[in-house]
Amino acid sequence: MAVVVRNIRRADRAATDALAGYGAATIHEAQGRTGLLAPYLHPVYAGAHIAGTAVTVSVPPGDNWMIHVAVEQCQDGDLLVVAPTSRSEAGYVGELLATALHQRGVRGVVIDAGCRDVAVLTRMGFPVWSRCVSATGTVKETLGDVNLPLVCARQLIEPGDVIVADDDGVVVVPRRNATEVLAASRTREHSEAANRTRYRAGELSLDVHRMRERLEQKGLKYVDQAADD
Amino acid sequence: MAVVVRNIRRADRAATDALAGYGAATIHEAQGRTGLLAPYLHPVYAGAHIAGTAVTVSVPPGDNWMIHVAVEQCQDGDLLVVAPTSRSEAGYVGELLATALHQRGVRGVVIDAGCRDVAVLTRMGFPVWSRCVSATGTVKETLGDVNLPLVCARQLIEPGDVIVADDDGVVVVPRRNATEVLAASRTREHSEAANRTRYRAGELSLDVHRMRERLEQKGLKYVDQAADD
Amino acid sequence: MAVVVRNIRRADRAATDALAGYGAATIHEAQGRTGLLAPYLHPVYAGAHIAGTAVTVSVPPGDNWMIHVAVEQCQDGDLLVVAPTSRSEAGYVGELLATALHQRGVRGVVIDAGCRDVAVLTRMGFPVWSRCVSATGTVKETLGDVNLPLVCARQLIEPGDVIVADDDGVVVVPRRNATEVLAASRTREHSEAANRTRYRAGELSLDVHRMRERLEQKGLKYVDQAADD
Amino acid sequence: MAVVVRNIRRADRAATDALAGYGAATIHEAQGRTGLLAPYLHPVYAGAHIAGTAVTVSVPPGDNWMIHVAVEQCQDGDLLVVAPTSRSEAGYVGELLATALHQRGVRGVVIDAGCRDVAVLTRMGFPVWSRCVSATGTVKETLGDVNLPLVCARQLIEPGDVIVADDDGVVVVPRRNATEVLAASRTREHSEAANRTRYRAGELSLDVHRMRERLEQKGLKYVDQAADD
Amino acid sequence: MAVVVRNIRRADRAATDALAGYGAATIHEAQGRTGLLAPYLHPVYAGAHIAGTAVTVSVPPGDNWMIHVAVEQCQDGDLLVVAPTSRSEAGYVGELLATALHQRGVRGVVIDAGCRDVAVLTRMGFPVWSRCVSATGTVKETLGDVNLPLVCARQLIEPGDVIVADDDGVVVVPRRNATEVLAASRTREHSEAANRTRYRAGELSLDVHRMRERLEQKGLKYVDQAADD
Amino acid sequence: MAVVVRNIRRADRAATDALAGYGAATIHEAQGRTGLLAPYLHPVYAGAHIAGTAVTVSVPPGDNWMIHVAVEQCQDGDLLVVAPTSRSEAGYVGELLATALHQRGVRGVVIDAGCRDVAVLTRMGFPVWSRCVSATGTVKETLGDVNLPLVCARQLIEPGDVIVADDDGVVVVPRRNATEVLAASRTREHSEAANRTRYRAGELSLDVHRMRERLEQKGLKYVDQAADD
Repeated sequence: MAVVVRNIRRADRAATDALAGYGAATIHEAQGRTGLLAPYLHPVYAGAHIAGTAVTVSVPPGDNWMIHVAVEQCQDGDLLVVAPTSRSEAGYVGELLATALHQRGVRGVVIDAGCRDVAVLTRMGFPVWSRCVSATGTVKETLGDVNLPLVCARQLIEPGDVIVADDDGVVVVPRRNATEVLAASRTREHSEAANRTRYRAGELSLDVHRMRERLEQKGLKYVDQAADD
Repeated sequence: MAVVVRNIRRADRAATDALAGYGAATIHEAQGRTGLLAPYLHPVYAGAHIAGTAVTVSVPPGDNWMIHVAVEQCQDGDLLVVAPTSRSEAGYVGELLATALHQRGVRGVVIDAGCRDVAVLTRMGFPVWSRCVSATGTVKETLGDVNLPLVCARQLIEPGDVIVADDDGVVVVPRRNATEVLAASRTREHSEAANRTRYRAGELSLDVHRMRERLEQKGLKYVDQAADD
Repeated sequence: MAVVVRNIRRADRAATDALAGYGAATIHEAQGRTGLLAPYLHPVYAGAHIAGTAVTVSVPPGDNWMIHVAVEQCQDGDLLVVAPTSRSEAGYVGELLATALHQRGVRGVVIDAGCRDVAVLTRMGFPVWSRCVSATGTVKETLGDVNLPLVCARQLIEPGDVIVADDDGVVVVPRRNATEVLAASRTREHSEAANRTRYRAGELSLDVHRMRERLEQKGLKYVDQAADD
Repeated sequence: MAVVVRNIRRADRAATDALAGYGAATIHEAQGRTGLLAPYLHPVYAGAHIAGTAVTVSVPPGDNWMIHVAVEQCQDGDLLVVAPTSRSEAGYVGELLATALHQRGVRGVVIDAGCRDVAVLTRMGFPVWSRCVSATGTVKETLGDVNLPLVCARQLIEPGDVIVADDDGVVVVPRRNATEVLAASRTREHSEAANRTRYRAGELSLDVHRMRERLEQKGLKYVDQAADD
Repeated sequence: MAVVVRNIRRADRAATDALAGYGAATIHEAQGRTGLLAPYLHPVYAGAHIAGTAVTVSVPPGDNWMIHVAVEQCQDGDLLVVAPTSRSEAGYVGELLATALHQRGVRGVVIDAGCRDVAVLTRMGFPVWSRCVSATGTVKETLGDVNLPLVCARQLIEPGDVIVADDDGVVVVPRRNATEVLAASRTREHSEAANRTRYRAGELSLDVHRMRERLEQKGLKYVDQAADD
Repeated sequence: MAVVVRNIRRADRAATDALAGYGAATIHEAQGRTGLLAPYLHPVYAGAHIAGTAVTVSVPPGDNWMIHVAVEQCQDGDLLVVAPTSRSEAGYVGELLATALHQRGVRGVVIDAGCRDVAVLTRMGFPVWSRCVSATGTVKETLGDVNLPLVCARQLIEPGDVIVADDDGVVVVPRRNATEVLAASRTREHSEAANRTRYRAGELSLDVHRMRERLEQKGLKYVDQAADD
């Protein structure tokens, strides 16, 4: 049943690249508070902010064979998404696979397991978001799947979806929604910039967003601290 | 039952500011090994070291409305302390709230849940200690409380208490004890400096603190490793 | 029953020092994928990469007395390995003990519990790999053992074993195997360098390691994505 | 964007009911080692073993409003599958919702969050598999979705899929595969029964499955324990 | 600074006893969704349901000396509440302490750490809610406090407060609120019983609680599943 | 490097069998508070209490092949101890392996990973202590070791050691110490029985063990609760 799906349809390249200009948090909000991967994923170094189209890999626990298979399916602008079929702390991805992926124009890796060689990855500027850092070696014995839909860190990822990752985490944008979510992200960012300006000037969000009346209706009470504490 | 307490009494400002000169570990020891928040709180960037007076916010899971309410109650020198009523990984605090808090002179945030926009917070120099980094958005539907006592990361925090936070963690100093704990922290630091000097010179703590006799009384035995291993 | 074993046999010094030239991941692979400590240990700062001979300390939860005892048993080139007898989040090691250990030529600490004063440790350049950062103070009441074999972060460590630690984690090399593992690490690194060169040139690991035939035997199928998704 | 999908297609009823005769482990194996939900789900009482067709509910953290909405969409033979949009320990389901679901012929609940009233659920014989037992109350303020595909405990569940749950855990069978997986489960169980009989008679799996040769090829060595230990 | 507070004021005995007739979930709701201890506490056996007045004990990690001190402060109708000053998995309470507590009329123990001898506790019918079951022994070296306010499993407990514990968890009722919360619990239970009757008769909570209009205002849409899936 | 060690020396059979008469907690105390496996191991059903001689198996993550190899090395009175080389939640042991082990007189299994078929194991009366219950299937591809020393749940286990397991957890007694630890366990149980009798009669441990003087020396203060709270 192990399958490699070739020639996947990918999200629009221009939209994907443009989405890298928005944070994972903004995109998550812009698409209706959906698509965030679990916050237990961490970048191996701070400051990376990338977007790419997902090549998905389902791997057995402690076995990274299928990642080697997946490299061949990757092209410039992709981002590798790896999830084990049961929880694993093995170090599936290190310098060698990163070198191979980097050579093909892959922008980074999101993996619901471990990665290693983090000092080298940092020097290379090849970012990985992983569940843990782990030097644990893997075997090459059991098959898995490449480019089937998979669940990674609590989210469904389909091959060709856009993945955006930064210091706040990782978000998936369904392939067909890339252009629309890009527009919504722009809108949201403009609105946030306007709010930011007002907050910096000392206005309160209570007033900017007219929250006071609704708070009162819900029953919020203001009291002064009692004199004798 | 949702309440906002205004005009809270705050710990002495000079003592609060001076406490920022001591580490969380030192203060914890100086007040009798009490007051530390749980070590699962982490700063979003290394190197911050602040002290402020607590404005406390109790929030529902996934709902940051009351933080907007709390901003108005903050003043220069405060530090916002947020705890959800049940465990949450939502990203309650980000750039916008940080901007509003910063504008009012708030020194940072301690939150037993998630925060987001960590790259921006780092650039702003607005430190947050949180349970996790999470881009997950929140709603504004359900009330909570501002400036009631609350439990945050296993510690009771009362409004107006001093919070000191650094790379080692977060400690609370009860409002009325600020001056006394400041003095005790100074004393402890002097004593530690003296010990440090002696250790650097090669003296052993076994001798500096005369531990040998008590170790022997307790039954400690010294043996040499057997010849044939 | 508390015992301090003096004059332990240590791994060969030259081999130990040379092992610091190889990553924990490489050494783990080179000795047959063994010896890694659990990935929940983290360095308090990035970039440290050390090797040393283990002085082992078994401590009660929340009690660091035996670490003071252990300092005297340490010599230049050692690395302190500490494990509590039941899970603990206390901050056993901080600036003072680090100063004393540093003065004796100890290269770092690996502890299956907490450490504190991480800002100072970073400035000192004295690296610690720990389960957590914790300012929680400890007592000095109950004995433990120094230089008995112990389990730390899921691995058996014998006194005198080589410990190598870097950003990827911590690995133990049994004392008698140091020279042999050093040679195997060199071999592995050469082989990896050759692979890296080929990957950088665009060769696929599928071809470099001739995986295609075996993948086919196992039943891997390649399909193109269906036209209508 | 909150949606309730009505009149979902459900897996074949006879196949669904028959799948309740097989364990989650058997079904997981029979469909190629797929479909298991994460092992952190636990039944609130031992001994339940059910199958039903999934009605899916995506809920905000700490808000069970949509479960009330979902009840109306349930019919005899269904099983409610609930997942929060971010991790939650709230007690979403208790006696009242269980009563309403039970009245409609729903066979149980699988929830990636908390449930409560477990003593009553046990007396009712209405089984729930949950992440935790939690008495924490929920609000009814924010919408979610009913009968959209969702990720629950690391697995994708589509409405109408078969869910089988027992003391070993929870497995999902895609709607269209129910009949085929039922047949494969029968086959597997027959084969396991045959093996069991041989093992009970003292045969070794090494011989029954002819493993010895392949073990030897892989390099397994047999040695006797050395005389002097 | 270690203190034992004697002669604490306790919640009204009749109200305390009557609260045992209500579940932790009901009481939590009745007092405004407050007071629940963290759901990681588990009863050592199913079916216990008790209420008692809190005697509080703050203990060092791995040291149960102060529990021995606390026994003397207990009287009939009390319930012992124990929290370590930093996270601990030691087995603080076992058959001997349970025997001593039982002899004094103590109704059970709530402990944010480990307990042991669970087979005997079950036979004795002496219930304990604990973070884990652990046979790990403790020492008797370091003082703590009895009957000071403490945080246990994320809740503030004051000596003399009512603790109610059942299979769903543990809830604290502030001492002075016992009678009022008892009345509110009765009211809530009556209301729930009425709802239950209507649900059993097939009415939907959507109708019983008139949720449909508000759901529509919030924007909930109903659609039928598309014909071609 | 994969090895099966045959003909291991086992702890004295009579002492092993007699140790089953003492609880894990008692034995842990009797041998100087050592030997307990981590409390995250749980029995699949309550009430089992066994002792056996360890046959140890080191397995790759998600691969149970070596357990099949280990069965042949087991004899009457043994207990199988299994640990994965990196953390795993797979269900390594189920009905079939249990049947094979049971047939050979093996008394149970301790595994630092998952087990499945818990309903059947319960009916069989074949007890397993595991990290989790998990139906996740395993492969048979990669070798490991049988009857080498291994770390299981934070403890070193040598083949032939005595393992005692009950509802409180699992303890290892080194092979050569079995008789001596048996005697110490008897002594401890007698002493505990005497204490229990005195506690039941209402004596306080403060008096039975003459703790009051030492508590006072350490500085414990008794105060009465202030009149005005």
